[in-house]
Amino acid sequence: MTLRTGSEVFDWLDTRAAARAKAGLTRTLRPRPETATVLDLAGNDYLGLTRDPRVTTAAAEAALAWGAGSTGSRLVTGTTDLHAELESELAEFCGFPSALVFATGYAANLGVIAALSGPGTVLVTDEYNHASLIDGGRLSRAETVVVPHRDVEAFRAALAGRTRKRALVVTDSVFSVDGDLAPLAELASACRDHGAGLVVDDAHGLGVLGAGEGAAAAAGLAGAPDVVVTTTLSKSLGAQGGAVMASERVIAHLVDTARSFIFDTGLAPSAVAGALAALRVVRADPLLPGRARAVARELAQRLSAAGLQASSPEAAVVSVRVPSPAQALEWSQRCRAEGVAVGCFRPPSVPDRVSRLRLTARADLTPDDITTAIDVITRTAPA
Amino acid sequence: MTLRTGSEVFDWLDTRAAARAKAGLTRTLRPRPETATVLDLAGNDYLGLTRDPRVTTAAAEAALAWGAGSTGSRLVTGTTDLHAELESELAEFCGFPSALVFATGYAANLGVIAALSGPGTVLVTDEYNHASLIDGGRLSRAETVVVPHRDVEAFRAALAGRTRKRALVVTDSVFSVDGDLAPLAELASACRDHGAGLVVDDAHGLGVLGAGEGAAAAAGLAGAPDVVVTTTLSKSLGAQGGAVMASERVIAHLVDTARSFIFDTGLAPSAVAGALAALRVVRADPLLPGRARAVARELAQRLSAAGLQASSPEAAVVSVRVPSPAQALEWSQRCRAEGVAVGCFRPPSVPDRVSRLRLTARADLTPDDITTAIDVITRTAPA
Repeated sequence: MTLRTGSEVFDWLDTRAAARAKAGLTRTLRPRPETATVLDLAGNDYLGLTRDPRVTTAAAEAALAWGAGSTGSRLVTGTTDLHAELESELAEFCGFPSALVFATGYAANLGVIAALSGPGTVLVTDEYNHASLIDGGRLSRAETVVVPHRDVEAFRAALAGRTRKRALVVTDSVFSVDGDLAPLAELASACRDHGAGLVVDDAHGLGVLGAGEGAAAAAGLAGAPDVVVTTTLSKSLGAQGGAVMASERVIAHLVDTARSFIFDTGLAPSAVAGALAALRVVRADPLLPGRARAVARELAQRLSAAGLQASSPEAAVVSVRVPSPAQALEWSQRCRAEGVAVGCFRPPSVPDRVSRLRLTARADLTPDDITTAIDVITRTAPA
Repeated sequence: MTLRTGSEVFDWLDTRAAARAKAGLTRTLRPRPETATVLDLAGNDYLGLTRDPRVTTAAAEAALAWGAGSTGSRLVTGTTDLHAELESELAEFCGFPSALVFATGYAANLGVIAALSGPGTVLVTDEYNHASLIDGGRLSRAETVVVPHRDVEAFRAALAGRTRKRALVVTDSVFSVDGDLAPLAELASACRDHGAGLVVDDAHGLGVLGAGEGAAAAAGLAGAPDVVVTTTLSKSLGAQGGAVMASERVIAHLVDTARSFIFDTGLAPSAVAGALAALRVVRADPLLPGRARAVARELAQRLSAAGLQASSPEAAVVSVRVPSPAQALEWSQRCRAEGVAVGCFRPPSVPDRVSRLRLTARADLTPDDITTAIDVITRTAPA
């Protein structure tokens, strides 16, 4: 008998890696230096607050005063006064009775979907929903009906034809790849006609839509008892973490039952304080979100005018379609070589398997930044 | 026809809340103030590094220098030089070729399990595994065989009897509730006899076992090509986040395919820097982990001597069994009223549905702290 070393157990990974390499789908982590060397149109710092001194100072002071971590689950030692303060101000700003902070936006989505559905319920979900919403559905063991993108009649038909009493409609507010908006008011109406709840992931809407209150307020749904909003603290609010805004009974239910809340360490105080400081910047400057949207529209118009296939942005995301993953990668690499960082979205990060460059319209981009970006992106486009 | 408002959609939550209240399972968030008012034996800050100035200063400086957040997915803008530095030092310390930082330990477990298994594979898991490992199994859609706690023969039988070629054994290293150790060397041997991989969640072992290198090193498995170690940066390392240590091909596979890595915002720079500073403290003081274990043994011995049902700790966790959830809650509340915070673990946070007080043995507890804790816990015990 041979002594087994286990070295062959993961041999199958090499086959997978070779297949991904052949398809142009190998990812490389590219650590960035402390001082930016490129113009960033790739991150999700929509309001330019991640490095705002009001935000970074608050984050730094919280680390010094409260410690580098929260030390435990939110249910044990991981809830500080800072968490309570952020939850209170976030709920008030977004117009909901209550809010709950999770360690990540991903965890917020897993927790909400699994806690509010389960076997014996139906999830009706947009085909382009974010991965974390899809994973929440898988964890829930609910029956899932995937409907065509933004197709309200298809949502209605799925709700009408369901065999289970309890149902949730689940959608992004701003879809992450193209930045298009969900028809939230129509979906809420469909939900009410059919006795279903509505879960909205506002990761790309909070701080961007309206005066920053996000998609639910923009659709007249703020504070609605049948609507649950999830979001992230790592995009417009420049920090890290996730949050849920809802009625008090929904939040109490999450505290008691959401596994990704109960079994995860609470968000670090510095991230809580950073998000809180960013929220206060947004509240003090209601025009800031509109600046991000205006930059997006300008980027898209100038790219379209140059003959590129740019999306029509209603939030702060602009996408440009590219025929193949390899071309998308090459284009983004050329942009980077010319000093402009853009997102390169390839399968499986794109639901329709169409590769794209993805541009983030930050509120703090200058006219010169925009001109540089347009110049580099158009000049490096595939022939 | 009545205008629907949706207010009744979540009425079912009230029924659930009433049932939990009746069973003594309602949770309350208790925000803590900036300055500790109680002796903390409830958090997971095993080495007392969360508030160590070396750690908090590093976290604060990183927030100021790098921003309050990482701004995007690790694959886009969310990887900084700090992330790469932490990954390199963590891998070296734990004796693995490579490491990868996730936004949370929960996300690390979801990502590893789902990416390394999947439909057509088998997960053989300890019945007491952490919730995040269980959720990873659900997400993976692999066949899951749950075996009795720490029962090596049952693991062997499950591996021998499996109908699928690819299999992973999944276990905590230090089980979170009682602090008992998995038989890692025996499990690795079983895996090698049956061509399976071994995934070890070392959340409660890193920084505590050996000179801090954790459970894999203690079991002679550091760097083994068939072993994958997950951990958290929010316990011994005092910050936030998760990490995976493995061979280079496993890490590359995670970068390309782990959904909770790809679709989540990268860990905030301050948490990365805090964890890195804490790691350097551990490396510079190899006796620190042993102090946490010695405190745990002393706590358990003195509680047992007082007639309480304390566990026999091999790491830094001590548990004390309590007949009912209501008694556990009342006991922990009495301790808190007397100035000592202890964990109160009730279903569903305990796999065997036995409620417990859970005590954390921090390396920085003084002899006076220990005497105070023993005095309060024994004095407030249920009759």
